[in-house]
Amino acid sequence: MHRRTFMVSAAATTAAAAAATFPKPAIAQNKRKWRMVTTWQKNLPGLGTGAQYFADQVTKCTGGRLSVELFAAGEIVPAFESIDAVKTGTVEMGHGCPYYWKGKAPAAEIVSNFPFGLTAQEYNAWYHFGGGEKLCDELYADAFGCKFFPCGNTGVQHPGWSRKEVNTLDDIKGLKVRMPGLGGEVMKRLGATVVNLPANEVTTALASGAIDWVEWNNPYGEASLGFWRHAKYYYTPGWHEPGTVLELFVNKKQWDSLEDDLKAIVQQCAFSANVVMLSEFQARSGPILDQFVNKHGVEIRRLNDEQITKLGETSAEVLNEITERDALAKKIFASMNKFRGEQKAYTTVAEGDFLHARSLNFSWPA
Amino acid sequence: MHRRTFMVSAAATTAAAAAATFPKPAIAQNKRKWRMVTTWQKNLPGLGTGAQYFADQVTKCTGGRLSVELFAAGEIVPAFESIDAVKTGTVEMGHGCPYYWKGKAPAAEIVSNFPFGLTAQEYNAWYHFGGGEKLCDELYADAFGCKFFPCGNTGVQHPGWSRKEVNTLDDIKGLKVRMPGLGGEVMKRLGATVVNLPANEVTTALASGAIDWVEWNNPYGEASLGFWRHAKYYYTPGWHEPGTVLELFVNKKQWDSLEDDLKAIVQQCAFSANVVMLSEFQARSGPILDQFVNKHGVEIRRLNDEQITKLGETSAEVLNEITERDALAKKIFASMNKFRGEQKAYTTVAEGDFLHARSLNFSWPA
Repeated sequence: MHRRTFMVSAAATTAAAAAATFPKPAIAQNKRKWRMVTTWQKNLPGLGTGAQYFADQVTKCTGGRLSVELFAAGEIVPAFESIDAVKTGTVEMGHGCPYYWKGKAPAAEIVSNFPFGLTAQEYNAWYHFGGGEKLCDELYADAFGCKFFPCGNTGVQHPGWSRKEVNTLDDIKGLKVRMPGLGGEVMKRLGATVVNLPANEVTTALASGAIDWVEWNNPYGEASLGFWRHAKYYYTPGWHEPGTVLELFVNKKQWDSLEDDLKAIVQQCAFSANVVMLSEFQARSGPILDQFVNKHGVEIRRLNDEQITKLGETSAEVLNEITERDALAKKIFASMNKFRGEQKAYTTVAEGDFLHARSLNFSWPA
Repeated sequence: MHRRTFMVSAAATTAAAAAATFPKPAIAQNKRKWRMVTTWQKNLPGLGTGAQYFADQVTKCTGGRLSVELFAAGEIVPAFESIDAVKTGTVEMGHGCPYYWKGKAPAAEIVSNFPFGLTAQEYNAWYHFGGGEKLCDELYADAFGCKFFPCGNTGVQHPGWSRKEVNTLDDIKGLKVRMPGLGGEVMKRLGATVVNLPANEVTTALASGAIDWVEWNNPYGEASLGFWRHAKYYYTPGWHEPGTVLELFVNKKQWDSLEDDLKAIVQQCAFSANVVMLSEFQARSGPILDQFVNKHGVEIRRLNDEQITKLGETSAEVLNEITERDALAKKIFASMNKFRGEQKAYTTVAEGDFLHARSLNFSWPA
């Protein structure tokens, strides 16, 4: 996924300074007003809109006893300072994506998901029935003084748009790739030149040939960026981010101060927003992919099994290195990876075989 | 899916008669006590436990202003009378599966999902962003005087356990199959002898060879039934029920009488239970499938493309006939089918290609 869509050009520093003058949360007449910072632009499709859905639902469910006001990236603090703003109690809660905090806690990158990891459905299963809740809470309490909830998922992301055909492992060598995170690290080890670029430069760089390949997220998130004008090949499979979780984090002291019914409401609204946000990515991406292909002439290409196998082995190396360096990352990876092992065959014969069946060519009502 | 696990042998008729003597819902001191009937046995794994989760969460979120007490099949009314009990106001709400009501409204079978239809993730996307909510509400208001919510999903089901190898289309002819619903109708048109059996007779019938093939739901739901003792072959893909939705239905007058915050809570808890229930089916099924294969020697077999294609074409015929007979079924099918068309290619290259990638053979951390 892109890590820069939230980088609003508005004067974030000014906003951060102004934050000190914002009114403190009021607990008057048993009414709380909480502020939620996000790593997204206001109403950014799928991400900003989903965070707003969550905030609105909490306000509705509590009849205003706990009203949540959303602040976009830069309005109170810059995107990347969201977790600190919640940790220190400047604001009560935040919405973002765990891997943004990997610099502060390596385990955060793992808890987001990892290459060849869990689908969105499996991630939820791990969180609710595979020990994930406890581990996520441990990480967020230790590293950020927060309570964690999964609150959205992008679904499987696409590994990239390419100007060039990538038919062999050799074709990856020297390829100029814009792909952040673990996926980018893996591509680098296969010989790609990995560059990082802010959102507003990516399309231009692709257009000029300064980069050959750009990874973003999925058709819905990519619709307005016009990559199809400059890159003809849209690659699958999404080996690098099979279902990136979005997060709600709540200042632990504020969380602990909530009455039990308010706690239950925040939790249920987060779980609800989880399915609603994934639904939006899914619903919008289908018709957009169709436009890419049937209106704009994009070719969907699949990396071949030899390429995927090499990407898999390299991902394993990268994951081993990260988890060797950090005990909590190791513990969380061990739990997610055990769960992955338990789910792999089942999901493949359930979801995978069904999708194969449905894609066969038979007459069907229009 | 089995339609009989809810058929509790306890004296349902007696219970129904006794229902008249149950206390009426109390609205005292602004507290409501609602009764929720279900089509499931108490704490039936995945289904009963999921319904209980929903009831408990509503009670918690409302701080007892709206407490929901769950009644299993037969405790107030028999399973199949749940929707009538809610329609007539005997109780306020119910939890079940839409296709149980197809005898009262053919569209209910379609709204459950249909062969070669939507995955759980796509169904949610249709409900939230594809016009599904409005159509489901229309059906439930017209036919049952209820408000509808999706509240759980089984995920992709498995088409069956077979004592016999089914390698060709001819092998389906004369096969004695226990498979209810549209799937069973399709198998019948391909020459199978389709029999309906209550839950307590299915394993015995399979053991004796009275039936050759039994469809139930998925590994988690099948774990305790011991089919593996009598049928060696576990077939995929789950063409017949790709993601069966479970439902919450609320008496429309009672629903309309709720304050806005209580409405919002019921809705959010239903959406939350939706993801939690699917998570339970997913989380538990993985390890159980592994036991079937690696402990009990079950062979996973895949129907071949010729068989699947024929099943697809026959499903299309069956769906056309149903929707020709009922205007609302036609309208709902049209909406779901249009959405299916929009999602098919996207889900296949996103989820499908990822599952292929993950199933390749490369070294991976243990």
